[in-house]
Amino acid sequence: MNPPPDQIAFLLACDRLKAVQRTTFLHDGSRAENSAEHSWHLALMALTLAEHAPIGMDLNRVIRLLLVHDLVEIHAGDLHFDAPDADHAAQAQAEERAAHALYGLLPDDQQADFHALRSEFEARLTPEARFARALDALQPMLLTWGEGGLGCTGRAPELTASRVLRLKESALRDFPALWTLAQEIVSGAVRAGTLPP
Amino acid sequence: MNPPPDQIAFLLACDRLKAVQRTTFLHDGSRAENSAEHSWHLALMALTLAEHAPIGMDLNRVIRLLLVHDLVEIHAGDLHFDAPDADHAAQAQAEERAAHALYGLLPDDQQADFHALRSEFEARLTPEARFARALDALQPMLLTWGEGGLGCTGRAPELTASRVLRLKESALRDFPALWTLAQEIVSGAVRAGTLPP
Repeated sequence: MNPPPDQIAFLLACDRLKAVQRTTFLHDGSRAENSAEHSWHLALMALTLAEHAPIGMDLNRVIRLLLVHDLVEIHAGDLHFDAPDADHAAQAQAEERAAHALYGLLPDDQQADFHALRSEFEARLTPEARFARALDALQPMLLTWGEGGLGCTGRAPELTASRVLRLKESALRDFPALWTLAQEIVSGAVRAGTLPP
Repeated sequence: MNPPPDQIAFLLACDRLKAVQRTTFLHDGSRAENSAEHSWHLALMALTLAEHAPIGMDLNRVIRLLLVHDLVEIHAGDLHFDAPDADHAAQAQAEERAAHALYGLLPDDQQADFHALRSEFEARLTPEARFARALDALQPMLLTWGEGGLGCTGRAPELTASRVLRLKESALRDFPALWTLAQEIVSGAVRAGTLPP
């Protein structure tokens, strides 16, 4: 049986995630990262840092969650992690509508699978969703302030080391290896002068 | 235990895949696709078209193969599928060297895992590698000549429908659903005037 036209329409619609710009820049500072390549980088991080996930975690599920976690941005756009609470609430509603528009392109049985991946990621109820979200919190820190990173003082002058750690802690503290790494990245950036203390 | 610095150095080196330009353009024709977002799109295709894989295939393995299959392009660059044979041979050597340079950043035990993924993909010996390669052959066709696609006559004027199918057949013919879809994409492009017959 051929792939039904709706699966193909969905995959073509998903091409537009490559045009969604994030606030994070690539590590060399050359341009903003887009959400498609970000999703790839997260899946690769999951594969590379697998040994730092809690024992028993389903890494394949983590990878699937990461591959689809930003798809709703095709309609709803990306939001900076330091945006006001009201913006986060409005964004959540926009993403809910976006999920129905985008997944609605798929055959019925498959819509449920994609909605389930999104709900799991958003609800943070499973270890897999929490690990996926921890990687999602860590990856922009790595690009921005990891070894050789240029920081983002020009783009986000209000960010300080303590503010970054306060905003990232809830996503990362359950995974000591990742949380320690995040703290080391921030200390390194302060030493390098790319992030105010 | 913290992620060792070599895993982090590897993940930062991999950021450069986002700067490797492919000859394929995004579906809207706005720019060339890069190899990182291409890898994401392939993994998403595997997830979406899973039901068209032969029964018993390990889809999680397919996704892992696709996530890493282009990493060597960070050092070796991308090559068009219609390039001369000599270029393909030189490219294979360059990619072998690239794999050792890039995976050499990783801890020893993990280098073997990444080399194994690459060897499996290159050797086409497993059903998972063949399905991954079939998706890799299909995805640029979808972007270029799928519904609404703009074709590439300006960039590759020598390409014809029969030449595209001849070049793609070996990767696709073992998967009837994908091969039929490829043929339909090409017929549609000929009808739309975006690909000479």
